[in-house]
This record gives sequence, C-alpha cells and structure tokens, in this order.
Amino acid sequence: MSDIPYKVYLSENEIPSAWYNVRADMKNKPAPLLNPGTGEALKAEDLMPIFCEELCKQEMNNDDKWIDIPGEVLDFYKMYRPSPLVRAYCLEKALGTPAHIYYKFEGNNTSGSHKLNSAIAQAYYAKKQGLKGVTTETGAGQWGTALSMATAYFGLDCQVYMVKVSYEQKPFRREVMRTYGATVTPSPSMTTNVGRKINEEFPGTDGSLGCAISEAVEAATSQEGYRYVLGSVLNQVLLHQSVIGLETKAALDKIGVKADMIIGCAGGGSNLGGLISPFVGEMLRGENQYEIIAVEPASCPSFTRGSYVYDFCDTGRVCPLAKMYTLGSNFMPAPNHAGGLRYHGMSSILSQLYADGYMKATSVKQTDVFAAAEQFARVEGILPAPESSHAIKVAIDEALKCKETGEAKNIVFGLTGTGYFDLVAYQKFNDGVMDDYIPTDDDIAKSLAQCPKF
Amino acid sequence: MSDIPYKVYLSENEIPSAWYNVRADMKNKPAPLLNPGTGEALKAEDLMPIFCEELCKQEMNNDDKWIDIPGEVLDFYKMYRPSPLVRAYCLEKALGTPAHIYYKFEGNNTSGSHKLNSAIAQAYYAKKQGLKGVTTETGAGQWGTALSMATAYFGLDCQVYMVKVSYEQKPFRREVMRTYGATVTPSPSMTTNVGRKINEEFPGTDGSLGCAISEAVEAATSQEGYRYVLGSVLNQVLLHQSVIGLETKAALDKIGVKADMIIGCAGGGSNLGGLISPFVGEMLRGENQYEIIAVEPASCPSFTRGSYVYDFCDTGRVCPLAKMYTLGSNFMPAPNHAGGLRYHGMSSILSQLYADGYMKATSVKQTDVFAAAEQFARVEGILPAPESSHAIKVAIDEALKCKETGEAKNIVFGLTGTGYFDLVAYQKFNDGVMDDYIPTDDDIAKSLAQCPKF
Repeated sequence: MSDIPYKVYLSENEIPSAWYNVRADMKNKPAPLLNPGTGEALKAEDLMPIFCEELCKQEMNNDDKWIDIPGEVLDFYKMYRPSPLVRAYCLEKALGTPAHIYYKFEGNNTSGSHKLNSAIAQAYYAKKQGLKGVTTETGAGQWGTALSMATAYFGLDCQVYMVKVSYEQKPFRREVMRTYGATVTPSPSMTTNVGRKINEEFPGTDGSLGCAISEAVEAATSQEGYRYVLGSVLNQVLLHQSVIGLETKAALDKIGVKADMIIGCAGGGSNLGGLISPFVGEMLRGENQYEIIAVEPASCPSFTRGSYVYDFCDTGRVCPLAKMYTLGSNFMPAPNHAGGLRYHGMSSILSQLYADGYMKATSVKQTDVFAAAEQFARVEGILPAPESSHAIKVAIDEALKCKETGEAKNIVFGLTGTGYFDLVAYQKFNDGVMDDYIPTDDDIAKSLAQCPKF
Repeated sequence: MSDIPYKVYLSENEIPSAWYNVRADMKNKPAPLLNPGTGEALKAEDLMPIFCEELCKQEMNNDDKWIDIPGEVLDFYKMYRPSPLVRAYCLEKALGTPAHIYYKFEGNNTSGSHKLNSAIAQAYYAKKQGLKGVTTETGAGQWGTALSMATAYFGLDCQVYMVKVSYEQKPFRREVMRTYGATVTPSPSMTTNVGRKINEEFPGTDGSLGCAISEAVEAATSQEGYRYVLGSVLNQVLLHQSVIGLETKAALDKIGVKADMIIGCAGGGSNLGGLISPFVGEMLRGENQYEIIAVEPASCPSFTRGSYVYDFCDTGRVCPLAKMYTLGSNFMPAPNHAGGLRYHGMSSILSQLYADGYMKATSVKQTDVFAAAEQFARVEGILPAPESSHAIKVAIDEALKCKETGEAKNIVFGLTGTGYFDLVAYQKFNDGVMDDYIPTDDDIAKSLAQCPKF
C-alpha cells in the first residue's frame, strides 16, 4: 500500500478564499437567459425582484475569474470543510484493479450533501441585503435541508414549498427542516394564488417541482423583504460549488497525483459543475487534459438523449428561458429514486462545455446504480446517496476496464452525499422489486416538440 | 478568535496503535461477573461458549495497560477515524460564554455513532477465530447497524434480533442493516425456543431488549461457528472505545489545551467509558485532576437513583451477574427517545470509578435535552442524536455557569452521534407533544427489591 492516507484532509486555512468562475476562461460563454415574453437577453437588474442582488450579479458575471468568499461564509465552511478526498483502497482491493480510485466526499454534514456549499452563500447574501427571509422549493429535500441550516445560522426566515408527495412520503426530511426553524408547506398549497389555482384544476394532485417553484417565486415576490433562492442549474450555484473542485485539486496536488479521469453525477449540474471547474479551467487554458464523464440516469437522460436548445427552466413556465441540453420542460421523469437527478434540463455552463467537447456523458440504469451502491457501501463503509451512486457505478466500470488493460489510471469521482433518507429506495432494491425506467424516443420527441422557438 | 481551528484533526498515523485498559490503573478493580446459579466468579473459559475467545480474555484482563489494535482493525479505523475534536466557536458565541467548548464528534460514519469502534474489533476477532458469523440484539438500531457494517467488511454472517416494536417503527435502520447483508429478525420471533415460548405466553407482544438478548444468545449457542456479541456495558467494549479518549487527549495536547471538565452521556457506559479513560487514568495515577460528569436521562437514572449491587444484565436473567449501579433488571424505562440510554444498569468499570469518587453524575429531563439539541443544531450545524444531546445539555449549563463566574473553563464533551434516524422524536418535540418521564421512588424501590442477594 502506498503512503497516501485513506483520507486526504486539507487544513482549514487551505479552504479556498475565492470561488473560481469557469465562465471567465470559456471562449464560448454559456448562452444568456432570455425573457420568455420578449425573447430578449435578461440583465442582472431584471432578475433582482426575484433573486438577491449580489446573486443576480454573480449570475451574469462571465468575466471575473475569482470571486472572494465572504469571511462569514468561510467561517461556516470551517464547520464542515475541507471535505475529505478519500482513497478507495478497499474498493480497489475488492475490484482487483490496478486503478487508483479517489472520491471527494461531500456527505459529512447534516444536509447530507454538497448543497450546503451554495445554501450558506445564498443565505449570506440575503442577510447582507437586509432581507427578512427567503423562499424555495424542494423535492427530495436535500436542498431544503441545506437552506434551513444556512438560514438558521444567519437568523433568516425560511419558507420551503415541498412537493406534496415528498412532504407526505419523506416526513423525516421535513422534520429536519422544521428543527432548523423552517416553515415547510406541502405544494400545491392554499397559501398562494398559483397553488389555489392548481388545487382547483387538479383536485387531490400530488404536486410537482414545477408547481412548487411557481409557489415559492410567488411567495418571494408577494412578501416585503423576501427573495427566492435555487439550489442547482444556475451559474451562481456552480460558482459556489467550485469549492468542491478547488479542494479536490489542492488535495491531489498535495499528494502529487494527477487525475486522469473525473466522474460526477449530473442532474441540474451543481455537483458536477463544481467538481470539474478547476480541471476544465486548465483544459480551457490549454494547460492540461482530463477525461471528464457526466453520469445521468437512463430515466432522465438530458445530455445523452436531449437537445441543446432554449427551453423553460420550470414546468410552470414562469421562469426565464435557458439554453441547455433538455428533454423538454413537459418531460415527466419516471419515479426514479435519485430525486436530485430528475430534472429535464442541465446547467447552461455544463451544456456549453459538453457542446464544445470538454466532457463526455453516459447514462446508467437504476438497478445497476443500486448494485454499485451496495458493493461500495459494504467495502468503503459509507452508505451513498442514489444520486452519488451514479458516479460510483461508472467509476467501478472504468476501474474494471483498467483491470483488463492493466492501466493504473487515477480515477476521481464525486461522492455528493449519503443515502440515510433514501432507505425506501434501498428497501425496494433489497426486496428485488426495483424497476428500471427508460423513456422511449417517442416520449422524448413529443416533449421536445413543445420547446419554444428562439 | 484564537488560532485553534474549528476542527482539530489528527493524522491517520496518530490513531492510537493500542487500546488503553483503564482497569490496569484501578486500585479497586471492577467486581467480577458471577455465575447466576452458583454465585461464583466467572473465568474467561466460562464465557467462551457464548463470546469469541479473544474477547473473553479481554473481558477478564485487569492487568495489561495497553492492548495492541490489530492492523486490520486499524485499517478500518482509517476509513472514518481519527474523528474530529471540534471547537464549538458558534455555540460559545451564541451563549456569550467565556468558556471554551470542545466536542469529540463520533457521528461521521454510516452507523452514525461511536458503536463502530467496538463492532469492527469484535468482528475482527470473530473472523480470526474462524467463525462463520455472529448474533446480536438491537433496540434503536445503532449497534446493529455498526455490527452489520463490520461483518460486511470481514465477510461474516450477521444475525440481528431487533426488538419488534423498533423493527416496525424504524424500518430505515432495519434497511441499512439489510443493505450491509445482515439478516434482521423481529423479536420475539418463531426462530428460537425462547422466542416461541414468549410469543406463546404473551401473544402479540412488542418485544423487549431482554428478550432479544435471550434469542440472540440462543441463536449463537445453537449454531455451529457462531458467537454472540454485545455493544455496551462489557469491559471489552470500554476497552475498544478508549480510542475515543486517546484521540481526544492527543488532539488537546496538540493544541496545548488542558480539559477542566469532561462530560458524556451514560447509558451502558460505552461512550463515556471510552471518552474518559485516559483522563481517569491520569487521575488514578495521581498525575492530574479533571471534573468528570456522567449525564443520564431522568427517566432511567441508574447512577443518580440506583444502587451499587449485583444484578442481572438482562431482563430475561440468562446472562451473568454484574456488580453495577442498577435500577433493577425488572425496571422498565419509560419510552424515552434516547434508546441508547434506556438500560437499567451501568458498566462495572464506570460503577466502580463512580463509587470511588472519580466522577459525578447528573440526570436531565427529555424536553430540556431536545431544547439543547435544537439550540446546538442551529448554530453548530450538526443534528445530534438524542443520547448525545444529554451531554450537550449539561455542557451548555456549565458554559452558562462560566458566564456568571467569568471563568474560561475548557469544557470537553462527547458528541456520540447524529439524530438522522431519530426524527420521530424531533417531530414530537417540534409539535410540542413530547413528555417527560420520571420514575417514582416507589417504582425504583420495587424493581431494586428483586435484585439477587450476593
């Protein structure tokens, strides 16, 4: 065994002091957001009634390569960061592979995922702006939990619209949010106009993320001192999440290892975008080469089977248009258990990078993902989130290819979180009653046909 | 703010290479286990049909001060240890106290608690002895989860008897165990003689820890190549858990801090005994003084309201007799949500140390504990286990005393785990419907009257 430890920890003063804005190094910038009514490109000011001021500026900032992390955010980061870069010695041994496998583990905090990295930044800017509180939506609950922790820390009010079916089926996620002082409302609710309207049109509906977004936006804009915040897809979120990649790069440099391959799961892109950003930056500047693989569920394959076009970000069609790989905003992903990967589109930054050939993408079946998750858990100890397990599956596949070729590749993947609130899914897998869902070409074509023409 | 980081991490090669056996430094040794039939002191050999050989030796070893941690166990420790010693800067600030508060956090592993420290050791010795597998009981499920992870790692079979009411109410804990390959049987079951007998006598019973122990012991002794393992109370468990205290001491030494006060929750004693062992060792050798406080639930106050006598370790009265602070083996603790602290007795080692004046004890009410837990979570981020929150409550009280006196005491407490599987309890607290349970003097006297006379 080498002298590389199991867990490479940076010290707290090695947490990056600035986020890296990959857009500054992109020759082809991500396409701008458009006003859905006029088709015109939006300016930061246009977004300010909805989002916090500083975050609107970050959203539009394609030029500044580094953006300082505020001291108060850094202090909070120190409670759970730097996160470890783990050498998967036990997995390597179990696979019998010559590959060296590393994973950046973001699950060692109560939110259970990397979402906290952006939640605390967004809460900070809301506080700095003098707001009373923020609103958001949550599906599976990871983002809502992270935001509740962040707002509790800064003494802000937090109103979470939780998709009704999740609210009822995931009472524990809801309870964590309440413990941190958030108000959690099942959506569609009777507290907003849009909620009442949907409840009237579709009595007894289970709700959807699209509807919850619409309610959260209405709640933000109809209350004095509130703004809406979002945990993925947006450029600002990828900016904050760059802390993952910067730490990963610093830890690899510390042990003198160059990654050959970087693998991450991709839903809206918050984790993958953060993880790969400094590595892609080197590629964009012509300094280095990496093989980057985005892994998405076969049930919601926006990179591998979607189109790169302008589309609505939400099912309710109230948000700006973004150019992205999309399956169409009407696409209803099957009930896959990786809730964080059930989004019809993809970050504009990642979409542009993918279009320009800086990364590959692959899709994997749910049952294969859970088999990989279980194999990983039994040797590496950590029970992974279903989302993260998409990356595990492909990392294992790549390590097994190395076994055939004899290559000692350095494989790095993002372990975004833990599966402690996903045990209904594990139970289905353990009981052998988990399904795989793969949309037909026709499903996707129908949904894509409804994209706006810009 | 001082230059002490938020989290003091030792490096992996600073994990102790030997466990510290506090019994070697005790002038008054813990009283020996007795055969319940004859009243004679048991020898290691007497225990070997039930427990693994090496563990029986460790159980009886009052002499060797240091016992080497096997390399395979150390390798596993490196996947989740050293655990951080955290400086609670945010809690200090919220309290406005001059005290410096530190906590040793054992929750950053999938079992969610310190239980894994002993589970992996016990699984290792079972493997080394060439056994096929082990059996155990679990109530709330933390020990069962830890053991499942440990047996998965060593490729051993694991049979867990889970108290029926927990099996039904905590399906997620059960599912984690299954994911790690364990067989989980609700107890009382129809798979053992004692289970069938109890089901016949008490149709529809919810089960109890005492019954689950009896079933697990029967399963171990009636199958070729199996032994029974236990996660608390025993001397061997405190030995393995000394890794907590040794790391805590090493981390404090590293930053040049001397603890004034060490606080831990106490159920069977596995965490408290491990945390304090090297500090108590210094006291026993006359090298240093510390104020040590055991915190127990008001609903199950063995130190503060029990008697120091020989008693049965289990309700079913099949196990050896131990001399300990006890409420009587018939004592039925009220349905407190800190499942890990609902034990009628206390480790023999801790009982002797308490009798000899090396530590104090105090009891706290459940609702006060959850209020402290919530206060802690909102500023320190981590959602604590109800068990751990007993220590938080007293640490906060002591820090507030320092605020009055102006003393800058160094307060160290054990944060044994996370509350991710305890959200039913948090929900009750959040809804304002949580009760406090305090046994009457009469309840305790009645139960104590049934202790055997030795």
